[in-house]
Amino acid sequence: MFYIIGLGLCDEKDITIRGLEAVKSSSRVYLEAYTSILMVQKERLEAFYGKDLILADRDMVETESDEILRDADTQNVSLLVVGDPFGATTHTDMILRARALKIPTRIIHNASIMNAIGACGLALYNFGQSVSLVFFTETWKPSSFYDRIKENTDLGLHTLVLLDIKVKEQSDENLARGRKIYEPPRYMSIPQAVLQLLETEDNRNSGTLSADKTLAIGMSRVGGGEEHQRIVCGTLAELASHPSDVFGEPLHSLVIVGKRLHPLEVEFTEGFAISRNTWRQVAKSIYGCALD
Amino acid sequence: MFYIIGLGLCDEKDITIRGLEAVKSSSRVYLEAYTSILMVQKERLEAFYGKDLILADRDMVETESDEILRDADTQNVSLLVVGDPFGATTHTDMILRARALKIPTRIIHNASIMNAIGACGLALYNFGQSVSLVFFTETWKPSSFYDRIKENTDLGLHTLVLLDIKVKEQSDENLARGRKIYEPPRYMSIPQAVLQLLETEDNRNSGTLSADKTLAIGMSRVGGGEEHQRIVCGTLAELASHPSDVFGEPLHSLVIVGKRLHPLEVEFTEGFAISRNTWRQVAKSIYGCALD
Repeated sequence: MFYIIGLGLCDEKDITIRGLEAVKSSSRVYLEAYTSILMVQKERLEAFYGKDLILADRDMVETESDEILRDADTQNVSLLVVGDPFGATTHTDMILRARALKIPTRIIHNASIMNAIGACGLALYNFGQSVSLVFFTETWKPSSFYDRIKENTDLGLHTLVLLDIKVKEQSDENLARGRKIYEPPRYMSIPQAVLQLLETEDNRNSGTLSADKTLAIGMSRVGGGEEHQRIVCGTLAELASHPSDVFGEPLHSLVIVGKRLHPLEVEFTEGFAISRNTWRQVAKSIYGCALD
Repeated sequence: MFYIIGLGLCDEKDITIRGLEAVKSSSRVYLEAYTSILMVQKERLEAFYGKDLILADRDMVETESDEILRDADTQNVSLLVVGDPFGATTHTDMILRARALKIPTRIIHNASIMNAIGACGLALYNFGQSVSLVFFTETWKPSSFYDRIKENTDLGLHTLVLLDIKVKEQSDENLARGRKIYEPPRYMSIPQAVLQLLETEDNRNSGTLSADKTLAIGMSRVGGGEEHQRIVCGTLAELASHPSDVFGEPLHSLVIVGKRLHPLEVEFTEGFAISRNTWRQVAKSIYGCALD
């Protein structure tokens, strides 16, 4: 059996009982670690699971899937992924490959940012499509995410913005010269994400986003519990100038609040606001939320 | 500490290690069982957790929250919910109440239908807002869900449709007479849901849904593994006339496929199609999907 097992969002204890049993029964266990990261290191997982883990980077998952699937028709093999197995299309590819090889597969689900984002206090059914925001460079500023955010905000829906992570990336020069030298990991911060959003609004100028009139929620280490998780609510301008170190270690996510904002959602979120007054004021006067 | 613990989707083994530790440390453990259900009975959970569970019905969660929260400032108390704690707004209310009482809370996330629906093979970032479909009666056929589906399909997005469940409901007569007699539980089936969708399309007539030109995916017991989970893909007409018992026990969910359908999504889903030919044909000619 080939298992793809979601690890959840935080640490070694977020695996499910079913997932842990599958890990313990496996002759090889791979850890996929480039579409997302946990808040702990591989060694801590290994100690807790009582298994050595084989790190599977993007290269390996995309080009050596047959090696990962080797003998999975006669033994158990597990691929561990942060969050839920269906967070990244790469894992869908693995399932298709297993299917072609007639290897039975079992998906073990877990929390992912796609549902745990509810922790910010906004109702999940008021979210539209989610978008990914990649690091801009001097010459490459892809902005299709902006069209998706506009579609959501035009309908009054909230948008989950997933912030880029760069793990085991090569510089252009090293890539061109075929040198396997990798840059240090980079994780987009909330202020950086907000600045990219506002830069894109400046270029597109459709009035979808506004520094002072768009509410947003920055979150870090969602699912990590009170001692790790941070939730900060404010206008885009407030979030852009908020001290970046408040959010601490990665991963960070951002929610753009839509106009269908409900008074109960305001009540829940205002406890996390940089300025409760501004939060309520914008919710009431710009969003038209029926507050006292 | 007041814990709200997601149980995931299937059975007693879908709880996380963190969740199980919290349950075992709690002096009282409540099981919320009206917004969703697991695939196993309470007794099986009790045997596995080594704890008695107190059933918390809608009445109790909505009107006796202070009793649930009693002593949670000095002891651990847990509320177990199917899926993830943020699947239902009721749980947001409980957190607000705990916050007002200055009781520390901790959310333990898990898979919910909102992210596990990815198992159908459609990419989560191509989903728009999700909708709930309630049982129609002769005199009450609320159709606001239709506007939401139209918003999604106009953008080409997929829609997750959550099907109604009725647990511990009173008949109008018993309610009027104040008799605490409850109807047997009811769970909406896929064909029933499809018929309600098509009935609403007949009334609204906006061309959003079509018996022969709209693709949809019926799923049951998502997260239950190969031996429980069913995925059936077809046009609405095909799903409406598909034998209902194929889907088996609840819970059932439905996905309306949007026009942004990607060839890789077709490749993944066609293995579940009632008629692979029809599935590919509609995907190609109606949805404009670039298939061979």
